[in-house]
Amino acid sequence: MSSSFGRLFVVTTFGESHGPGVGVVVDGMPPGIAVEVAAIQRELDRRRPGQSALTTQRQETDQVEVLSGLFEGVSLGTPIAMLVRNADARSKDYEALKQVFRPGHADYATQEKYGVRDHRGGGRSSGRETVGRVAAGALARAALATVGVRVVGGTVQVGTVAAKRRDWDEVEKNPVRCPDAAAAQVMAEVILKARDEKDSIGGVVEVVATGVPAGWGDPTMTKLDALLGAAMLSIPATKGVEIGGGFAMTERHGSETNDVFDGTRYLSNFAGGISGGISNGAEVVVRVAVRPATSIGKPQTAATEGGGTTTIEIKGRHDPCICPRVVPVAESMMAITLADAWLRQRALRGRER
Amino acid sequence: MSSSFGRLFVVTTFGESHGPGVGVVVDGMPPGIAVEVAAIQRELDRRRPGQSALTTQRQETDQVEVLSGLFEGVSLGTPIAMLVRNADARSKDYEALKQVFRPGHADYATQEKYGVRDHRGGGRSSGRETVGRVAAGALARAALATVGVRVVGGTVQVGTVAAKRRDWDEVEKNPVRCPDAAAAQVMAEVILKARDEKDSIGGVVEVVATGVPAGWGDPTMTKLDALLGAAMLSIPATKGVEIGGGFAMTERHGSETNDVFDGTRYLSNFAGGISGGISNGAEVVVRVAVRPATSIGKPQTAATEGGGTTTIEIKGRHDPCICPRVVPVAESMMAITLADAWLRQRALRGRER
Amino acid sequence: MSSSFGRLFVVTTFGESHGPGVGVVVDGMPPGIAVEVAAIQRELDRRRPGQSALTTQRQETDQVEVLSGLFEGVSLGTPIAMLVRNADARSKDYEALKQVFRPGHADYATQEKYGVRDHRGGGRSSGRETVGRVAAGALARAALATVGVRVVGGTVQVGTVAAKRRDWDEVEKNPVRCPDAAAAQVMAEVILKARDEKDSIGGVVEVVATGVPAGWGDPTMTKLDALLGAAMLSIPATKGVEIGGGFAMTERHGSETNDVFDGTRYLSNFAGGISGGISNGAEVVVRVAVRPATSIGKPQTAATEGGGTTTIEIKGRHDPCICPRVVPVAESMMAITLADAWLRQRALRGRER
Amino acid sequence: MSSSFGRLFVVTTFGESHGPGVGVVVDGMPPGIAVEVAAIQRELDRRRPGQSALTTQRQETDQVEVLSGLFEGVSLGTPIAMLVRNADARSKDYEALKQVFRPGHADYATQEKYGVRDHRGGGRSSGRETVGRVAAGALARAALATVGVRVVGGTVQVGTVAAKRRDWDEVEKNPVRCPDAAAAQVMAEVILKARDEKDSIGGVVEVVATGVPAGWGDPTMTKLDALLGAAMLSIPATKGVEIGGGFAMTERHGSETNDVFDGTRYLSNFAGGISGGISNGAEVVVRVAVRPATSIGKPQTAATEGGGTTTIEIKGRHDPCICPRVVPVAESMMAITLADAWLRQRALRGRER
Repeated sequence: MSSSFGRLFVVTTFGESHGPGVGVVVDGMPPGIAVEVAAIQRELDRRRPGQSALTTQRQETDQVEVLSGLFEGVSLGTPIAMLVRNADARSKDYEALKQVFRPGHADYATQEKYGVRDHRGGGRSSGRETVGRVAAGALARAALATVGVRVVGGTVQVGTVAAKRRDWDEVEKNPVRCPDAAAAQVMAEVILKARDEKDSIGGVVEVVATGVPAGWGDPTMTKLDALLGAAMLSIPATKGVEIGGGFAMTERHGSETNDVFDGTRYLSNFAGGISGGISNGAEVVVRVAVRPATSIGKPQTAATEGGGTTTIEIKGRHDPCICPRVVPVAESMMAITLADAWLRQRALRGRER
Repeated sequence: MSSSFGRLFVVTTFGESHGPGVGVVVDGMPPGIAVEVAAIQRELDRRRPGQSALTTQRQETDQVEVLSGLFEGVSLGTPIAMLVRNADARSKDYEALKQVFRPGHADYATQEKYGVRDHRGGGRSSGRETVGRVAAGALARAALATVGVRVVGGTVQVGTVAAKRRDWDEVEKNPVRCPDAAAAQVMAEVILKARDEKDSIGGVVEVVATGVPAGWGDPTMTKLDALLGAAMLSIPATKGVEIGGGFAMTERHGSETNDVFDGTRYLSNFAGGISGGISNGAEVVVRVAVRPATSIGKPQTAATEGGGTTTIEIKGRHDPCICPRVVPVAESMMAITLADAWLRQRALRGRER
Repeated sequence: MSSSFGRLFVVTTFGESHGPGVGVVVDGMPPGIAVEVAAIQRELDRRRPGQSALTTQRQETDQVEVLSGLFEGVSLGTPIAMLVRNADARSKDYEALKQVFRPGHADYATQEKYGVRDHRGGGRSSGRETVGRVAAGALARAALATVGVRVVGGTVQVGTVAAKRRDWDEVEKNPVRCPDAAAAQVMAEVILKARDEKDSIGGVVEVVATGVPAGWGDPTMTKLDALLGAAMLSIPATKGVEIGGGFAMTERHGSETNDVFDGTRYLSNFAGGISGGISNGAEVVVRVAVRPATSIGKPQTAATEGGGTTTIEIKGRHDPCICPRVVPVAESMMAITLADAWLRQRALRGRER
Repeated sequence: MSSSFGRLFVVTTFGESHGPGVGVVVDGMPPGIAVEVAAIQRELDRRRPGQSALTTQRQETDQVEVLSGLFEGVSLGTPIAMLVRNADARSKDYEALKQVFRPGHADYATQEKYGVRDHRGGGRSSGRETVGRVAAGALARAALATVGVRVVGGTVQVGTVAAKRRDWDEVEKNPVRCPDAAAAQVMAEVILKARDEKDSIGGVVEVVATGVPAGWGDPTMTKLDALLGAAMLSIPATKGVEIGGGFAMTERHGSETNDVFDGTRYLSNFAGGISGGISNGAEVVVRVAVRPATSIGKPQTAATEGGGTTTIEIKGRHDPCICPRVVPVAESMMAITLADAWLRQRALRGRER
């Protein structure tokens, strides 16, 4: 249950970083939807390590195998299981860390929770778990496309450098995945500097859904804001989320932030496309705070299982800034959340959307 | 399902703002826990309207009636249903708004979602729905108290005025519910000014849990961050949430934000008490962005059901700043989330906590 | 969670037998459906004690109050909470049983489960909990009626006396609720004889749904058979359930029990309207085994809390045969299950049914 | 969601009969439990086709691969995914059935539900889906063993031949899996006769759990009876379930069927170990009605997609009596259900069991 997301479009991931593989079961994909395995692979390639100098050099081809639920290129409405084998798992990089709790990592909390853990590469807490999310996200995108909904995203801040533009077509043209080509160059420099200093840097990822009709979501416990918030904060290394105007609105007045709707369109979008928990027909806009990667090469003080401390220099191959690789994951989680909200609205009204 | 929160400590609210009443069913309260109805009432009194000049003047005594699940002052382990009657519902204040979609409100989205709505006072989207949450939160607090966990909170920002201190004992001594007495005075002035201008102002509420042991939460989809994020963003008028260092961390380096643990205590708390989705033994710290109330007296342009627009001046009795009343609600949602995480950890390990 | 049934049409009951009241929250009723409170009351009157000499003489008027979710006679799509006050609760009838575990009852199991219990009248295990189910069932019926589905039922066996006919219009004309007027008379005699002997007698209740289209249910874990089985076995005093041919089929060959479908209609209905877990267009037929009521006046040996035994004669007012009162409950649970399956199919296909 | 069973011990199966493979994800296995892959394989071998002349001759080695959640022979508390490849899938056996709805099968209902289907071998409705259940059941058994709970089962009726004894050690010694060696011989003859006549025969499987302490289960919607009922009726080809005395009790009086408990042990077990939905400390006893296999070689009339009819002779390799292979599946579903109930009780009380 703790590895599942969604109620009608249910995504369950499995797999440890250094086990046989990672994967996902998607239960609730509607039947009759054309799904290309190549499209799933394309999304996985965006998430894959080793894409550029800005990301970890772990080499994984991350080839997906679809185990069920598709028949002659079309979804059957049954669970779609997908598997990606782990290939380049240098487990021995982690031998030295067997009894060490790395600062900022989940090591200590995991040990306290389970009483046992796979210390190699973070086990279940590894970013590698997101492989399954991205594969599931590709299905959610295919489903949403049938009702005209599209999800895009990009890195909009690295350190103190913020994107000024939202040109989503630009995103795949630079390794930062920034929708502002000029800002992307400065961001890349900031990231490389952090890497060279054996350090890491934080940032912000923004995801946007277009084509969402008014009426998805719920007024109370499962507000669309709440579901999207959970989706984003379930991504490793995220520590904040905001919808539309977000935290900036806390300094403003209602007369400034009430989005006026002229019956056809909204004249502003402080609500981020969600009013009272329900989509209002405007673009759904979410930003997620990505902390600096906790795995850094700099010497750090770490606790040990016995109760003492030691100094460590983490040797694995890690991302100096996680944002570029969070982009496809955040998009996927948004797509999954919206696919679920869509199906729930279909249940409520008995209409296509 | 859309009115429920939690998996083992399941809170389901019901009730419209201007219907017979509002309430809640809590299914999953452990048996044998002493529960005072007076303690529940005390929390409801903190949420109640009409407490000061800073809040709406709607008069509701909000007397709770416990309908089930308690026997001789102790929880039975069965569902605890609680009911609060609506008293001062001036429905006719809303007659003029029957076919109007107020800017910033859920009116339009609700109509599109359901095809039918109770236009009086926001119906289900009203802040009045949170009565049930606060009553449930009082039970969660009683349950958590048995394992030494306590939740506190306060308003830490109003407009551009930020609290400098976190003196939680101060909170109930000022109407802003600010843990910084000096800042509270300035905040109160800002709020009264907004009220006098028939406007509203935003702010930030912080909630903190002490005594949470390491090991609550999960490493992937149901990270404690994600559950707390959903909890907070399910509260009306919230548009952002951050844990620990939150958005501020996005401008920092890993070498600055990795919390060093010396085996006994953390030397910093950028993680907000949660590492990799699992509590790490430090205080759990969450901040929530509260937008300016959308109900304001100033003239505004609003869409009408026919497709045109009209000018409205909202006449109801509303909060110029919602933060003071969000405080008990945010605390309640944190308590509910932690109670649920606690029970899940008990299931996992078969130990008291 | 343990008091909820359903995934999209979610029914949560609350209330102890001798507490302030019993009730239910229905979360997931589709919006825009006409609901008459009188129709809900009518179903509750069928379940009510004291209807005839065949049932318990406890006097409860069981007047329902709708607390939320209806507006001007129509469902809002929000939770519908309903409350029935307990009136004639003679708690002192149970004083003598405070430390006694009655044979056949849940007393001992409840004490072991919770460590605390409300000993008066069975608390949560009382048949009185079904008040909420019947109220919820009335809503499910109203919802299903909009797509042409109707649920009927009756007592088809008492002791060794079996009904030969299924004349559903006959059911409300005799106190046994038997669809065979002639058999009903014999059954009534059997029940009165048991009552006079301070004993009780078992029986079988059958429920049938007409108008269910092909396609509701699922092929694996949530087969419609499985959901209906859970629904029936969640009713107090039931110990068996069968669909269509049921146990009788275990003595037969496939060539006899394969229902031939000529493209228009089924020439037999051994499948009870469900093939491979999915409705197949034929009538859905379920039978439930109702054990003899465990509360009997005859002297019995009972265990006591200390570990010894005692002889008891249960003094409360009880049903000599529960079947007549199980009928509306079983119908309700079937309606609730089908309403849920209907909504899930709407989610899957995005069509009205 | 429709492929999942359980709330804390969550079992999700995937895979079509003639797709790449079948498998399961178990989310909720407690950490630190020793798990031998050989033990999982042993259970799968019991379910495997081609074991004897009494079962289908489809050849599948059904070798399980564990993809996650185990580390150095111990469960990590994370999802355990298991995969079995499909090998001997003679899809062309099914070409002729592409547009035919076989009598008794799910073909028509599936087509109406999804609008698309994998016609080869029943797709998702195939008995092959139970591979995942049995693998999950092996984990549930390992978990339950740590608290002294054991599940056994056997075929207790074939056609009109009933077992007189319950010698569970006998079960694996005869191909019928009957706990009565003498009855097993007669049953085998009945099955072979059905096979020779290109027909099939029904039967009853009984499963029993020993060592279940009092207190597992719930008093209302999720009674242990209800969960076990759902578990059993989710197995392909089952059409009835009874607990303890079951349908036989419907002909009896309360004075006969109330199990007297002398403070130490029950003098009878009509309740089948469950009182008021909660385990009472006695053996938990469940029987499930298995219909005759619907796949038979005899000529039958079948509907076609166009709306007409045709005569078919099913050519695949099928089981003349499903009971022997249902035994490990029913045991698995009972173990899964009890593992879930156990974890829920741990959540409620915070104790090992």
